[in-house]
Amino acid sequence: MDSQETYQQLCTYVRESALLSSAASVLEWEEQTYMPPAAGEYRAEQLSLLATLTHERETAPQMGEWLDTLSGSDLATDTTQPASAVIRELRRSYDRQTKLSKELVAALARATSRGQQVWTEARKENDFAKFAPYLAEIIKLKREEADAVGYDDCRYDALLDDYEPHATAAEVGPVLKSLGEALVPIVAAIGDSTHQPNTEILDRDYPIDVQTAFGEAAAKQMGFDFRSGRIDVTAHPFCTTLGPHDVRLTTRFDKSDIRPGFLSILHEAGHGLYEQGLPSEEFGLPSAHSVSLGIHESQSRMWEILVGLSRPFWNHFYPKLQAAFPQSLAETPLDDFYFAMNESKPSLIRVEADEATYNLHILIRFELEMALLADELEVDALPAAWNEKYEQYLGITPPSDALGVMQDVHWSAGLVGYFPTYALGNLYAAQFFAQARQDLGDLDAQIGRGEFAPLLDWLRTNIHQHGQRYTAAELVERITGQPLSSDALLRHLKDKFGGLYRL
Amino acid sequence: MDSQETYQQLCTYVRESALLSSAASVLEWEEQTYMPPAAGEYRAEQLSLLATLTHERETAPQMGEWLDTLSGSDLATDTTQPASAVIRELRRSYDRQTKLSKELVAALARATSRGQQVWTEARKENDFAKFAPYLAEIIKLKREEADAVGYDDCRYDALLDDYEPHATAAEVGPVLKSLGEALVPIVAAIGDSTHQPNTEILDRDYPIDVQTAFGEAAAKQMGFDFRSGRIDVTAHPFCTTLGPHDVRLTTRFDKSDIRPGFLSILHEAGHGLYEQGLPSEEFGLPSAHSVSLGIHESQSRMWEILVGLSRPFWNHFYPKLQAAFPQSLAETPLDDFYFAMNESKPSLIRVEADEATYNLHILIRFELEMALLADELEVDALPAAWNEKYEQYLGITPPSDALGVMQDVHWSAGLVGYFPTYALGNLYAAQFFAQARQDLGDLDAQIGRGEFAPLLDWLRTNIHQHGQRYTAAELVERITGQPLSSDALLRHLKDKFGGLYRL
Repeated sequence: MDSQETYQQLCTYVRESALLSSAASVLEWEEQTYMPPAAGEYRAEQLSLLATLTHERETAPQMGEWLDTLSGSDLATDTTQPASAVIRELRRSYDRQTKLSKELVAALARATSRGQQVWTEARKENDFAKFAPYLAEIIKLKREEADAVGYDDCRYDALLDDYEPHATAAEVGPVLKSLGEALVPIVAAIGDSTHQPNTEILDRDYPIDVQTAFGEAAAKQMGFDFRSGRIDVTAHPFCTTLGPHDVRLTTRFDKSDIRPGFLSILHEAGHGLYEQGLPSEEFGLPSAHSVSLGIHESQSRMWEILVGLSRPFWNHFYPKLQAAFPQSLAETPLDDFYFAMNESKPSLIRVEADEATYNLHILIRFELEMALLADELEVDALPAAWNEKYEQYLGITPPSDALGVMQDVHWSAGLVGYFPTYALGNLYAAQFFAQARQDLGDLDAQIGRGEFAPLLDWLRTNIHQHGQRYTAAELVERITGQPLSSDALLRHLKDKFGGLYRL
Repeated sequence: MDSQETYQQLCTYVRESALLSSAASVLEWEEQTYMPPAAGEYRAEQLSLLATLTHERETAPQMGEWLDTLSGSDLATDTTQPASAVIRELRRSYDRQTKLSKELVAALARATSRGQQVWTEARKENDFAKFAPYLAEIIKLKREEADAVGYDDCRYDALLDDYEPHATAAEVGPVLKSLGEALVPIVAAIGDSTHQPNTEILDRDYPIDVQTAFGEAAAKQMGFDFRSGRIDVTAHPFCTTLGPHDVRLTTRFDKSDIRPGFLSILHEAGHGLYEQGLPSEEFGLPSAHSVSLGIHESQSRMWEILVGLSRPFWNHFYPKLQAAFPQSLAETPLDDFYFAMNESKPSLIRVEADEATYNLHILIRFELEMALLADELEVDALPAAWNEKYEQYLGITPPSDALGVMQDVHWSAGLVGYFPTYALGNLYAAQFFAQARQDLGDLDAQIGRGEFAPLLDWLRTNIHQHGQRYTAAELVERITGQPLSSDALLRHLKDKFGGLYRL
């Protein structure tokens, strides 16, 4: 059998596995959206069986044999061919999964399931000591996971790779550090400015059915295809893909504030546009898969922040918003609305942070994770280290661990090495957007006319259509001619907030 | 290994299969309710894989070995033990599935998939000749299926058994025939009556959000548990079970007529109450499965018709309905409303037929199916035979095949032998309801007070909790002391319509 034939067999098999894993995604989506409360226990059993069947397929010896056969073949080594990236990514994922022992996988599943339960209680009771032993167990197992997977430079890399393939702490760390150092004085200057927005105007009456229609219309205008997707309401917004023509977004609405609902729709639609732009005919293969969580987040943050919180965007949309909510906004000038939407100030909670302060929250978590993984910090010392860093970077000290070290679900769920992808998303978004502005000429004017097709086409051409053909580092270099850097993001923040706050 | 151990292994295996088949049910439900239009093709692939995996498990040689080991053991032969019914039904289902060759199953899947497509077109174009060759192929394959499954008396039994286990044409046929003979003069007398309802009062304005709230409240009052279920909207109403605590109902609303939406909710809630009453801890086993489609339909028709279209029901609910729709109903007396809701007249379309004429539609289909299966009628002669029977039983002749022989999807989908279960549902419902009235004493008064718990408890005790412990014939004998009979239904119809139409 020649390698072309082996490659076809491998691809057919992998795509069949995707039928199974995407079926599980339907069940997960439904659990979050419509499932009645008492049905949860059995749903977990259904999902557990589907996960087992999928895992068995993905770690089947046959997979290893096909990949071994292909290793060294032209298909694998000729990197000008798309197949090489498919083989590279299937190998990476197969190796990772097969390196973890059944015992370790089971121990992690148990520890994180219990960990999340205890975290929920401990956060409610503001009792870090209750959570600490469970978190310590999770960190110990994540160290074991990293050691089993293996790494060249540092343990953190083995975990980061699961979310941001091929990235390393040595590449990401210095960029985050320099970003943080530059942000601290910017954030301080914003706080010291005497020119501050009036945010009361966002605390008014916004009927949810009108918010829904307005948000859906905006997503449609951005290019989200509702024939191949939909928007529902969940406790926490997310985007999930259930098939090659089936992308689900969710949001949550606040009837007195349009920001949570509308910005979540823009954010999730950014993820959704990426998913809808991947080559549907190769669904299930790395060639139709997003590059990394960082690149995925670059798409959501670009649409949410760089487009959706920009002045040209509201030049176009604000009259429509006023027409939709005349009682709340008819008398409010665009300038006031726009400034209020972009209020920036240091805050305790990451998910509520504005774009200027957000990456400092990430830097803090990254530094703490690095120290935990390197055995330089123990879990018991985590709250003090957390509070110290919040003082250092944001000038505020959490009044409680519930509003501090216990605010995020990630660690309790075993998601260690995940946080940097949020900051990478912001960095890549700014680099891509600057390049798009250069390539498209009058991008602001297009956005100001509500024309998003040129930007979406640019993203489709430069990013979406390639699937995992290029790594994140290769992609940013290929598109912008530069490696990962904080320059574009800092330039954007200085321009925007310098203007708003008259710095 | 003793037979108890074998039995446990078998049950564990079967319950794991149910995890897989119920996961497919989630995907099917979602396809009908929320799935975006372009996602259908991939959804079909997901479902096809899940069906293959389920079929492989259900026909696995291991299943046959376990069943062979158990055959003749005390567990199987001691019919006082619940296990005997579990083994009996698993054996029946395993034998049926393994007797069909892969080729025949594949041929049936192809013929019915194509058959439904052509049926849709042919019905639209009123062109039976276009549909005829596809239907002929399906009937030919259904004859082959019956011959492969085997039967004692007539071919029809082998198909009927798939929907109404252990029932035979010899048992069901004479009852349907006698029912039909008694109905013809009743229907004629209703038509000849000078006292007819004014149905204009049902063609008014009924906002759909109010209909939804009213229907959900009624279902809740009947005892449907919304913690373990929900109601959504689909093109065709149905009830499906996605797990032991997860029963989904659907309905469709007409904004100018409350009947379709409200009666569908009562009907599907009747199915749903049965599903919610099965022993959840044995979900996946025959001991937690409905007896048959006929018994299932007896539950839906009891709540829809015998309860929901009864005078005591509306004594309780009509003031609430008037309060919900004051503009449409405030001036309408209960007598007029109740008579209009119960209008009876011969009509062309089965799914729109009233309770007095409905079973004649079924009798016609049953007689035609019997003739087709017995090679006594060819597909080309079907439209003429259909029209003749409509004239004979209902005194009307369809003006077109679209409104006649092509009105139902069933035959194009390979569902031959299914129709009698609808009539069985009506017969069993009347028999059970008469017995419940006897056992509960003041059933009408309870319904008139909106108290449904006594009736539901009676159904739970006598029917729901037993799963497939008893066959339908055993169950009706056990509960009422009588075999299947048309007496109770005819008594009910004569009483009700005799009163309404002053016969």
